[in-house]
Amino acid sequence: MTGAAEVRFRRVALIGIGLIGSSISHAIRRHGGLAETIVGSSPTASTRDKAVEIGLVDAAFADPAVAVAGADLVILCAPVGAYARIAKSIGPALSPGAILTDVGSVKAAVVADVGPYVPAGVDFIPGHPIAGTEQSGPESGFASLFDGRWCILTPTATARAEAVERLVQFWKALGSNVELMTAEHHDRVLAITSHLPHLIAFNIVNTAAHLERVTDSEVIKFSAGGFRDFTRIAASDPTMWRDVFLNNKAAVLEMLGRFTEDLFHLQRAIRYDDGEELFQLFGEAREIRRGIIMAGQDTPAPDFGRSPQTKKPPQG
Amino acid sequence: MTGAAEVRFRRVALIGIGLIGSSISHAIRRHGGLAETIVGSSPTASTRDKAVEIGLVDAAFADPAVAVAGADLVILCAPVGAYARIAKSIGPALSPGAILTDVGSVKAAVVADVGPYVPAGVDFIPGHPIAGTEQSGPESGFASLFDGRWCILTPTATARAEAVERLVQFWKALGSNVELMTAEHHDRVLAITSHLPHLIAFNIVNTAAHLERVTDSEVIKFSAGGFRDFTRIAASDPTMWRDVFLNNKAAVLEMLGRFTEDLFHLQRAIRYDDGEELFQLFGEAREIRRGIIMAGQDTPAPDFGRSPQTKKPPQG
Repeated sequence: MTGAAEVRFRRVALIGIGLIGSSISHAIRRHGGLAETIVGSSPTASTRDKAVEIGLVDAAFADPAVAVAGADLVILCAPVGAYARIAKSIGPALSPGAILTDVGSVKAAVVADVGPYVPAGVDFIPGHPIAGTEQSGPESGFASLFDGRWCILTPTATARAEAVERLVQFWKALGSNVELMTAEHHDRVLAITSHLPHLIAFNIVNTAAHLERVTDSEVIKFSAGGFRDFTRIAASDPTMWRDVFLNNKAAVLEMLGRFTEDLFHLQRAIRYDDGEELFQLFGEAREIRRGIIMAGQDTPAPDFGRSPQTKKPPQG
Repeated sequence: MTGAAEVRFRRVALIGIGLIGSSISHAIRRHGGLAETIVGSSPTASTRDKAVEIGLVDAAFADPAVAVAGADLVILCAPVGAYARIAKSIGPALSPGAILTDVGSVKAAVVADVGPYVPAGVDFIPGHPIAGTEQSGPESGFASLFDGRWCILTPTATARAEAVERLVQFWKALGSNVELMTAEHHDRVLAITSHLPHLIAFNIVNTAAHLERVTDSEVIKFSAGGFRDFTRIAASDPTMWRDVFLNNKAAVLEMLGRFTEDLFHLQRAIRYDDGEELFQLFGEAREIRRGIIMAGQDTPAPDFGRSPQTKKPPQG
């Protein structure tokens, strides 16, 4: 681990104070020496009040340009669809030598939207912590959100190497593992590991909701058979996800094409009673699950039986 | 609650001793007075040995016809694809007055496969506890699996009302809520709440695995963005799920058709940048999630950030 001195920032500005912004604040506070001051910006008065009240920020401003003045680290934590407007507003107020980064779930569109407004002397290093819950708002954050998760950084060509290294150390201090890649590769990897799963989850929940003869109450009542787990993913913030799909269109449409092709293959195996093919495909899926547990990205504890009344079974 | 005396069975025979069979045994033992003797049957010697060793059954037999002799409650807990063969074998050995039930995830096919072998005087009452985990085998069961979950019974026309009531009380004693419906309605409800979600999960995991340029290790590494939750569902037993899809073909294909239609609608909204439609659909999905939490079928604790090292955040 790197000592606090090497990554200490004078003033961190969080533009947007939802799940990720508030979790960054908690993780900075937990660490102790990462930032002298944290300021924030939100267009919503109640969010600003709450953020100050629970100590997420030392000061909150409606105008993001005021929040970034004098900051040496600026983190965009707003929905990606708002970035262009924010960048246009804060561009002239950014301090020379500052690092500008973000936490958005898409990266090529962020480079296109924000890049033109970044003044010379500011290091623009887009980022994406692969962490979250299905909850949102300034009270949903917690300090351990990034622990053991991956944060992807996609440095622009003009970002200085020492600024990139400083941001890498910052995310490590928040608890993350860090990986560097291009914005385009990020968007492809995330299209399959995150964007497509969310789209599918939203879709199946809506398909269920629109069934006429299966009432909502039956869908809900018997949801423990698998449907429940999709609704958890589908409970994620609608604004954020609208922006993700509009801003990673090409990669998402490509993955959707592959998904549909594979689904038709499965559908055909069911129609023609090809049990061998089904067994083979289901077995392969199980192997991938083992890989994820081995990689420490999930726990092997059985989880389908969860309920407020039910204790987790003991695991050997 | 009903007292133990009313539902006490002399001899319960579990045909198949995997996750559900072993959990039924644990739940019977937890209750104390539900059965005098539990016997089991499995074609696998190591499963029989393990079941006796850890006290799941008082005796285990390779031949299911031997296991059911003298039993007043026989529960088929094997993969649905094996039911016809088992029914043919045990039919002549079933005792008059016995209740024959099962725990399979499809019901119309079970009635068709098993019904012809059920002798007069035996009450055949197919059942399906909506509970499970992604794990399998005799050591995966636990007593609380059915607590607060639903068990659906689909009594055949010839089953006596008092036998149905006795089985209802048995499942309640194991911790379940119980609902009665026709086999056909069950298959439709489960097609959307369980079978389709599993098929989709298997499919997306395989789509990810087959991508050439996104390596397996990247898919696994960055799986916390949503993909991980699909792999959990896709880790379920391949044999069981093959049999489910082959035995609930009509309902699954119908739901698949609706799902694909809805997915194309979403895909079109992405292609034509219809953010309003996306926002609307995602918001509706979020409402269904709220209903599931209100109905006690899941917990509102955020779960995406889970990891062996990460503590659950405190919830207000």
